[in-house]
Amino acid sequence: MKRGFGSDNHSGVSPEVLEAIASANQEHALAYGDDEYCARATKLFKQTFGEQASVYFVFNGTGANVLNIDAMCRSHHAVVCSDTAHIHVDECGAPQRIVGCKLLTVPTPDGKLTPELVKTQLHGFGFEHHSQPRAISIAQSTELGTLYTLDEIRALAELAHSYQMYLHMDGARLANAAVALGCSFKEMTTDQGVDCLSFGGTKNGLLMGESAVILNPALDVELKYRRKQMGQLCSKMRYMAAQFEVYLGTDLWRRNAEHSNRMAQLLYNELKRSFPQVKVMYPVQVNSVFVQLPHEVWTALQQDYFFYDWDEAANVVRWMCSFDTTEEDIHGFLAALDRRMGGKR
Amino acid sequence: MKRGFGSDNHSGVSPEVLEAIASANQEHALAYGDDEYCARATKLFKQTFGEQASVYFVFNGTGANVLNIDAMCRSHHAVVCSDTAHIHVDECGAPQRIVGCKLLTVPTPDGKLTPELVKTQLHGFGFEHHSQPRAISIAQSTELGTLYTLDEIRALAELAHSYQMYLHMDGARLANAAVALGCSFKEMTTDQGVDCLSFGGTKNGLLMGESAVILNPALDVELKYRRKQMGQLCSKMRYMAAQFEVYLGTDLWRRNAEHSNRMAQLLYNELKRSFPQVKVMYPVQVNSVFVQLPHEVWTALQQDYFFYDWDEAANVVRWMCSFDTTEEDIHGFLAALDRRMGGKR
Amino acid sequence: MKRGFGSDNHSGVSPEVLEAIASANQEHALAYGDDEYCARATKLFKQTFGEQASVYFVFNGTGANVLNIDAMCRSHHAVVCSDTAHIHVDECGAPQRIVGCKLLTVPTPDGKLTPELVKTQLHGFGFEHHSQPRAISIAQSTELGTLYTLDEIRALAELAHSYQMYLHMDGARLANAAVALGCSFKEMTTDQGVDCLSFGGTKNGLLMGESAVILNPALDVELKYRRKQMGQLCSKMRYMAAQFEVYLGTDLWRRNAEHSNRMAQLLYNELKRSFPQVKVMYPVQVNSVFVQLPHEVWTALQQDYFFYDWDEAANVVRWMCSFDTTEEDIHGFLAALDRRMGGKR
Amino acid sequence: MKRGFGSDNHSGVSPEVLEAIASANQEHALAYGDDEYCARATKLFKQTFGEQASVYFVFNGTGANVLNIDAMCRSHHAVVCSDTAHIHVDECGAPQRIVGCKLLTVPTPDGKLTPELVKTQLHGFGFEHHSQPRAISIAQSTELGTLYTLDEIRALAELAHSYQMYLHMDGARLANAAVALGCSFKEMTTDQGVDCLSFGGTKNGLLMGESAVILNPALDVELKYRRKQMGQLCSKMRYMAAQFEVYLGTDLWRRNAEHSNRMAQLLYNELKRSFPQVKVMYPVQVNSVFVQLPHEVWTALQQDYFFYDWDEAANVVRWMCSFDTTEEDIHGFLAALDRRMGGKR
Repeated sequence: MKRGFGSDNHSGVSPEVLEAIASANQEHALAYGDDEYCARATKLFKQTFGEQASVYFVFNGTGANVLNIDAMCRSHHAVVCSDTAHIHVDECGAPQRIVGCKLLTVPTPDGKLTPELVKTQLHGFGFEHHSQPRAISIAQSTELGTLYTLDEIRALAELAHSYQMYLHMDGARLANAAVALGCSFKEMTTDQGVDCLSFGGTKNGLLMGESAVILNPALDVELKYRRKQMGQLCSKMRYMAAQFEVYLGTDLWRRNAEHSNRMAQLLYNELKRSFPQVKVMYPVQVNSVFVQLPHEVWTALQQDYFFYDWDEAANVVRWMCSFDTTEEDIHGFLAALDRRMGGKR
Repeated sequence: MKRGFGSDNHSGVSPEVLEAIASANQEHALAYGDDEYCARATKLFKQTFGEQASVYFVFNGTGANVLNIDAMCRSHHAVVCSDTAHIHVDECGAPQRIVGCKLLTVPTPDGKLTPELVKTQLHGFGFEHHSQPRAISIAQSTELGTLYTLDEIRALAELAHSYQMYLHMDGARLANAAVALGCSFKEMTTDQGVDCLSFGGTKNGLLMGESAVILNPALDVELKYRRKQMGQLCSKMRYMAAQFEVYLGTDLWRRNAEHSNRMAQLLYNELKRSFPQVKVMYPVQVNSVFVQLPHEVWTALQQDYFFYDWDEAANVVRWMCSFDTTEEDIHGFLAALDRRMGGKR
Repeated sequence: MKRGFGSDNHSGVSPEVLEAIASANQEHALAYGDDEYCARATKLFKQTFGEQASVYFVFNGTGANVLNIDAMCRSHHAVVCSDTAHIHVDECGAPQRIVGCKLLTVPTPDGKLTPELVKTQLHGFGFEHHSQPRAISIAQSTELGTLYTLDEIRALAELAHSYQMYLHMDGARLANAAVALGCSFKEMTTDQGVDCLSFGGTKNGLLMGESAVILNPALDVELKYRRKQMGQLCSKMRYMAAQFEVYLGTDLWRRNAEHSNRMAQLLYNELKRSFPQVKVMYPVQVNSVFVQLPHEVWTALQQDYFFYDWDEAANVVRWMCSFDTTEEDIHGFLAALDRRMGGKR
Repeated sequence: MKRGFGSDNHSGVSPEVLEAIASANQEHALAYGDDEYCARATKLFKQTFGEQASVYFVFNGTGANVLNIDAMCRSHHAVVCSDTAHIHVDECGAPQRIVGCKLLTVPTPDGKLTPELVKTQLHGFGFEHHSQPRAISIAQSTELGTLYTLDEIRALAELAHSYQMYLHMDGARLANAAVALGCSFKEMTTDQGVDCLSFGGTKNGLLMGESAVILNPALDVELKYRRKQMGQLCSKMRYMAAQFEVYLGTDLWRRNAEHSNRMAQLLYNELKRSFPQVKVMYPVQVNSVFVQLPHEVWTALQQDYFFYDWDEAANVVRWMCSFDTTEEDIHGFLAALDRRMGGKR
């Protein structure tokens, strides 16, 4: 397949991760998480997010999000989220099927909820005909590549808690957020009052590693059964834990995320410099760039490099950088863009 | 962890599998199954099970079983299975939660259903108060290490079809069954009328690779959405496909299964020869040996080697061999058994 | 309790309905619908909606709506509806829990969907990450007391069918719609291409009688089991059928609906005449009047007559007339409004 | 339809119940339970079962059973019940679909669980692969017309509580049990440690009235939302409450139950006296008689009187008496039996 900017899922696996998997491949280990690799990885999660944190390794982001929603909500509850949230648009209704709850979606200009936007959904408490709002779910970074500041996270956590609700963070790209904001994982989550977190590594160089991290111990109730019943319990879990061990125990998460962010910044800067007429849709804060292009340009450009349209009707496309994007990729891509734009530049 | 006979999940990953994963780690690949590795692996599945077969890669055995049940049943349907079936005793109620259907369990002496046993559950058709029997589910090999003959499989398939029902096979250890019976995967499944199959590799040397194989095309309806909604769609699926490519495309599945079966046979033969007083519970047909031992013997023996009790009240324990079990493991284990039995031998 | 304009559920039962129940109370009858009352009522439904129609009696509107959604959708499907739809705001997430599907809500100015509004949700077909749009659901009359014309219904049905989707109509107040539009039930439903209908009588004088009417026979698949499994199968169903027999077999439905519509019209006309400063929010087409009033006025008025606020923040209240609303009720209410408005009139 | 012994659902409604419904039919009343009829009925339930009891009116027995199971269990839990339990054989898998949990069924000789039988299912606690046993469910009277003594109920409650489990009682025929045992409802339930109760009136002369009675306040958590979401919230609930008001507030429940029990006893005594060769299967303790008859006899007898076979293969049929069964019914039936048995008597 030709290289491109389709998704941080299209890139491969960091060599360190493959090495970690190979190192774990010796002797016997207990299955289902009762092994020493999982013990060490769990310890790293506690060091990272605070001693009160508990971690449930799962297979993918849908598994992490649904297990977290399941920890917060029963079926008569509702989760307030942006109408661009992955849990709403990209999981084929998994929360509805598996948890049975409702999502209350709010249009947002940039993928970010605000207390004011959330409050539009906070009514009907105590009224049995109405799904009871129980959680706020945000993504950091968002699906549009934007970031919440620490204060913005705290404000949403405080709003949630003032209504006896919880704050969930979808951190499929939390590493990209951390390096962009220059803060630790804990500062973005536990310290701001986030109750539970979907923490992913697959989009940042792991082979397959996601997790539901319960930061508020009150939510850590019978989740091991829930994970199993959802089909998210891995048998040879040592190989998942080994990935997280190298991810969190070294600077791998940081290196990879810094790189992909830097590549997106390079792409953005070159665009601004050389293609001033191209509209960039959102602030470029992590590893994605959303632009609006004439239909004939972006469809032609897809013949050179792989990427997805984001909103076909609006001619908005998404360019995603990853840990293995190179400067050559960027420059080659911009050269192709130049060609495809013809004299329009 | 000390070596032992706990589970074929406790063993690691075949070197060939790690090599296949490493080989797949180059350049970009489309996510979610649209890559060339998946195309090649799918082709191998079709060569193995027949051109009409379609394969859905999933994360684990629970995912494969639940997706297959979902393909056969809606929530008002029932699945007839043995009361030792993995779907009944080892999946924490996943079929009930995810599909919402009922399991109708039948006691069996050896883990095997027969038409007579199944017929005890085949009533109430058309009666709206009664969950409608819709599928028969068998495991090959069974959870007790026993095997269905080809004729027995066909008889159950014919029974199912005569009631407009389906036959599902849980093939978590299908490779062990194939080498034991000396027949191909297709002869045990498609050719006997099996409608869908959970085909696993994780217990036979893969890192993580399971699949729902739809053999009856009438069942292949909108399953891609169902897999996604269940949280069983892998993003970097090339790494799962690459495992199956080496598994099915070489003799790896056969070598590993032959070895683990042979180790179990060795263990069984030595037991018969040197420990005639030890009761072996079921025919040793694949890679497990179930024995009854005095309580103080098996609990003491667990200090030397790892294994699980199967039925604590009855003092029955399970010894499971795997692709990495060695003859030294067997002889060391028997020596330990000898010591722990003291003069009782 | 003081009389008022709270809901057409607050009124009692038409005397003819109680008489029908009493008449049915003789001798034995088969339970669960296999009795002669059900046979006669079913025949009336077929006369009313066409011979192809099948009817499933259920306990309440939630039961009717959920059974219809279940007939159209599996869990990976989505239903497009107005964000004021009863299925979205007033059923505590029943569709999500029981069917497991998603609702895609669209803001509407007057509670009515249009093809243009629906089309904003019709994308992602074939994309496994996206809940597949499968049904459009409208209410006739709407929750805001507005009506679809026959042409508008047909346009939505044609849109649905052009996408292999279905059109569901929530007819909790279908009788009010029929008398307002001067057309038959069949003209509003079967003739325009509606695929399934929730047909209610409880809001129009029945004690308890709702139904899921399947107009498109392709949807009539195994629904008897689904109804039972949802807990919506009545045992002594003759008493429900007897209500529908008098409702559809005489002019009861028409008399009651005409009366409640006329009372709403009287209220509206008097408002326009004597309270020109009171803003009426939506066209008054059936039996409800939505008005905006100063907060202190409507809260004071609630001391005289019972009614609910509809949107507290916007000071919009709902006045609902029913089959037992009298002209005295209207005049007394307007006199109270006059008093409570003080010199503001 | 010809009279018979088919079900206590085939009989009609007690005249007092219709009168109570008619009396409730005046003026307006709040919907969904906030009316004075519900307040009075709730007070009667508290007087009957203890002040700590809370009652949720629902439409039918399935609704009551499922709401109670939902109060006790989440989806990873299991309910231990007899394999003749209504929740297992007669609700089309409603608990599995609505709650998502597992039922663990135990064969019983007479429909009654014992601590010993239950204990066979009490294992796997803490093991995430195993649905966690969380409740024991018994029926009083059982589906086979047998009764638990107070001591037997207490023993099961104590067993349940010693495992942090709950005891549910399906009391669809609790009135028949109470008059047979000569004890109060409270003595059979609250006083023995029953945690929640499905209390029915429909089989004993009500038109439609069932309830989930929560006896253990720890289980009374957010159930109003759960009832609504299940589709079990009645709008014009005053008419359901009015039925319970006359049922519990007068001796109606007792009169009806005493009568139907007496009729069954008459039938049994006459059988013993005049048909000694007819095998009665279970002790006749309430209002049903199960007998084994030659196939040609019972099928011929069905031409004279309506009744159901219970186990066609075993030629066992069920004869159910109800509040409107007359002595003439019994004698006519026995005369028909005599004729149908020919010289075999």
